Amino acid sequence: MQNFHPIASKYETLKARLLEINDITSAAGLLYWDQATYMPPGGATARGRQIATLRQIAHQKFTDPALGELLEDLKSYEESLEYDSDAASLIRVTRRKYQKAIQVPEEFMARMSKHHSATYAVWAKARAENDFRAVQPYLEKNLELSQEMASFFPGYEHIADPLIDFYDYGMTVAQLRPLFTDLKSKLIHLVEAIASQPPIDNSFLHQHFPEHQQLNFTRKVVTSLGYDFNRGRQDKTLHPFMTKFSLGDVRITTRVYENDFSQALFSSIHETGHALYEQGICPSYEGSPLANGTSAGIHESQSRLWENTIGRSRGFWGYFYPQLQGVFLNQLKHISVDQFYRGINKVERSLIRTDADEVTYNLHVAIRFELELDLLAGKLTIQDLPEAWNQRYESDLGIRPQGDRDGVMQDVHWYSGLIGGQFQGYTLGNAIAAQIYQTAIRRNPAITVDIEQGKFDTLHQWLKENIYQHGSKYTPNELLERVTGQPLTIEPFITYIYQKYHGLYDLNSFNLGKDIGQEINH
Amino acid sequence: MQNFHPIASKYETLKARLLEINDITSAAGLLYWDQATYMPPGGATARGRQIATLRQIAHQKFTDPALGELLEDLKSYEESLEYDSDAASLIRVTRRKYQKAIQVPEEFMARMSKHHSATYAVWAKARAENDFRAVQPYLEKNLELSQEMASFFPGYEHIADPLIDFYDYGMTVAQLRPLFTDLKSKLIHLVEAIASQPPIDNSFLHQHFPEHQQLNFTRKVVTSLGYDFNRGRQDKTLHPFMTKFSLGDVRITTRVYENDFSQALFSSIHETGHALYEQGICPSYEGSPLANGTSAGIHESQSRLWENTIGRSRGFWGYFYPQLQGVFLNQLKHISVDQFYRGINKVERSLIRTDADEVTYNLHVAIRFELELDLLAGKLTIQDLPEAWNQRYESDLGIRPQGDRDGVMQDVHWYSGLIGGQFQGYTLGNAIAAQIYQTAIRRNPAITVDIEQGKFDTLHQWLKENIYQHGSKYTPNELLERVTGQPLTIEPFITYIYQKYHGLYDLNSFNLGKDIGQEINH
Repeated sequence: MQNFHPIASKYETLKARLLEINDITSAAGLLYWDQATYMPPGGATARGRQIATLRQIAHQKFTDPALGELLEDLKSYEESLEYDSDAASLIRVTRRKYQKAIQVPEEFMARMSKHHSATYAVWAKARAENDFRAVQPYLEKNLELSQEMASFFPGYEHIADPLIDFYDYGMTVAQLRPLFTDLKSKLIHLVEAIASQPPIDNSFLHQHFPEHQQLNFTRKVVTSLGYDFNRGRQDKTLHPFMTKFSLGDVRITTRVYENDFSQALFSSIHETGHALYEQGICPSYEGSPLANGTSAGIHESQSRLWENTIGRSRGFWGYFYPQLQGVFLNQLKHISVDQFYRGINKVERSLIRTDADEVTYNLHVAIRFELELDLLAGKLTIQDLPEAWNQRYESDLGIRPQGDRDGVMQDVHWYSGLIGGQFQGYTLGNAIAAQIYQTAIRRNPAITVDIEQGKFDTLHQWLKENIYQHGSKYTPNELLERVTGQPLTIEPFITYIYQKYHGLYDLNSFNLGKDIGQEINH
Repeated sequence: MQNFHPIASKYETLKARLLEINDITSAAGLLYWDQATYMPPGGATARGRQIATLRQIAHQKFTDPALGELLEDLKSYEESLEYDSDAASLIRVTRRKYQKAIQVPEEFMARMSKHHSATYAVWAKARAENDFRAVQPYLEKNLELSQEMASFFPGYEHIADPLIDFYDYGMTVAQLRPLFTDLKSKLIHLVEAIASQPPIDNSFLHQHFPEHQQLNFTRKVVTSLGYDFNRGRQDKTLHPFMTKFSLGDVRITTRVYENDFSQALFSSIHETGHALYEQGICPSYEGSPLANGTSAGIHESQSRLWENTIGRSRGFWGYFYPQLQGVFLNQLKHISVDQFYRGINKVERSLIRTDADEVTYNLHVAIRFELELDLLAGKLTIQDLPEAWNQRYESDLGIRPQGDRDGVMQDVHWYSGLIGGQFQGYTLGNAIAAQIYQTAIRRNPAITVDIEQGKFDTLHQWLKENIYQHGSKYTPNELLERVTGQPLTIEPFITYIYQKYHGLYDLNSFNLGKDIGQEINH
């Protein structure tokens, strides 16, 4: 049968191929979700293999030369369309990912995936036993694999650039390092100022809060924020994450500590931020590469925006605190909303990144980011990594891990994926959250007023319209320019963090330095 | 590099290919499990497509001509080995399935899968609204698809034979129909005799039994039977099933009715029977076509054996009833173990197959089996199916559905899969359970004594050794001959059912007919 619309037909073929790949990847995602929530111990061996098998098949299909030919055939079609039309964007984003994917040999992908699974298992045991040396050879091998991965992308300026590019497309060490260095020095200064003030008492957060009450309250909060339980669900896990199997099935996970009220609630709001992004993507992108958040940093900006900028704000608790007191009357009846607000924003020099407050958090990230740059560049060995880690904690945070369990082995990232690329997104997230929120409330001042009334829809809709709906259509840099009118900057974050903690810690009498004073006032 | 062991290498290649296919199929299984347990409503559309995508990929890979060439190359190797060696069996079983699979065009598989998904969705709504006509066109199309499926296997005697062959390899209408007809007439006679006796009072089963207590007791029971929760788990669903993602992850599901004690417990024991089979397969078969129960009928024999032969026996409850009374003291303190035993074995003419007792159950199955033979052979139209259904219920069971919801729309099978092949396995299961159990207790009389002591390991180990470990190594007929020394027969089931219900309903004074009397005494 003659085809009267060869280009339209090729475009449909491209979409069908991408949909198949999406389905395989989504299935791998469900296998992972199940592994982290409900899978019995006996399923572990086969499950690791099954996830690897699906990912390998997806990779094979995505790197099929026939896909490359389709993209080539569609080039003139793409050029005939507006840059930000859905079709041009789909072809453009697919081509970008395709050209990256075909650089990586299938054999390498399988080898790396297998090694990551093995390393994960050894790490879990080594961490429990506080025995870094047990996992050291695996980590050494993983560093080699990460360097090998970078080697498939010659022409980089820094060896970490191709790895960063996987997560935060278009960002480089050259762009990020100065920003991070600047941020770090300002935060160290702020943490010092805070440390010289009387500590906040947050002991009331460590009373007994029954699990089911925590989960009920959490569910109420995340529903208010806009999380759609008809298109998602929440389950318990060891390390909370968000995952998506389709735009109609975007799940969050949490963990509950009955002696720490903060964990379940704030990690749930965090994952809800990720989920709102995915649930808000334009439905017609379903099953295509456009139907994902555009980068790790932009994604993290949404989780941090909801978790910290909103979830730890005075306005938010002005609305929710009476409800919370109603649920936990015995625990909170003598705690005022201001005490509570101060308690959940206590700044503390601590060892564990995931437990860190929003001021020290970026110092934790900076340590990892800088260490992995050194590892990749051959300036630091895995052998010396634990000591380098501990020294950095001592110098930047003024606190030294007593064991590698709470030091270099605390995060799963290096033990289950690439060394390099995974950490910068966390700090980018905080910076971008501030940059975006600053724009949002300038454009629509009703946002903050509405939040005080428990109306989160104003912000949610603004974010959906400006960010969520676009999925991966724009690169992170394009999106930032488009939304905020300027490139990535850490200034809004510095302003936000100084203003907030200035008030919380009564820092008026402190000389915060010329630069910082200016930022507070601008 | 020269290969010094070309045959060994080809055998390893075959196993690697089969493992990949197994992983894809297992992933599809998990997607289904999740759909039936935890998936939010918004996930439905994509999930149906994702399952279909994975199954299609698995089918493509299994019908790859390269697999056929491997099997061809391995023919002489297979012939050089003992018939029941693992390697010969793996090659033989794979070849059999391959030769069947390549008859079915990939395009047809995709079309059928898509139609089954669509039909399922329409059925769920039509059933809720008691509106058969809404799903009728879908069912008509499904009948055509089932007939088309049969057409890929020319040379059959009855059009249902190729479909039965998918589920119960080697069985045919010619073999089964006489057995089923004989069984039916004997059961109708028995049901009539029972109906003329005073009904058993089982109203105590319909008190309030709190869900968590039911689930706790159920968990205790299935653990005692040998179900390994380290290699499985139990979750709630609408229509209970067993599923396996690896030999280390074999899951069961259940549903709980707080006003009906029987549901959760007996359906859990039923699914546990299926699960014990899968958990008991030789671990070295993992990921190969040998690592599955060998047929629907043999599988069902294990679920029915544990559910009915054991779970509804006097010996079983002699052990468990005091524990049950301990849990449900208020509900059961005035009910003796004998009253309880009679209550859970009450025979009743009822409309719903899945709720039927073990006497009338096979009459439900016979109706479906015979109707689908007529549908496939073109002797009955879908248009006339509801009335034919109702008439058969009236003539065989003496009871007529008031609506199609409780009639022709009650079972999911025809609305989500082939019409033909799926039902005979249920009655085969009952017959084979009796045939196998008769052999088991003849060979090891300790089995019944041990059950009265709550020791189920004696039976479990016997079944594991004689049936479970072999997976799909033997065909159903081979396995029956091997285990019981004779071909498939319904006599042990007739003997079992008459002996048991003779006692329960005091049928001594009734003339059960010459044939039946002989069977009871033989």
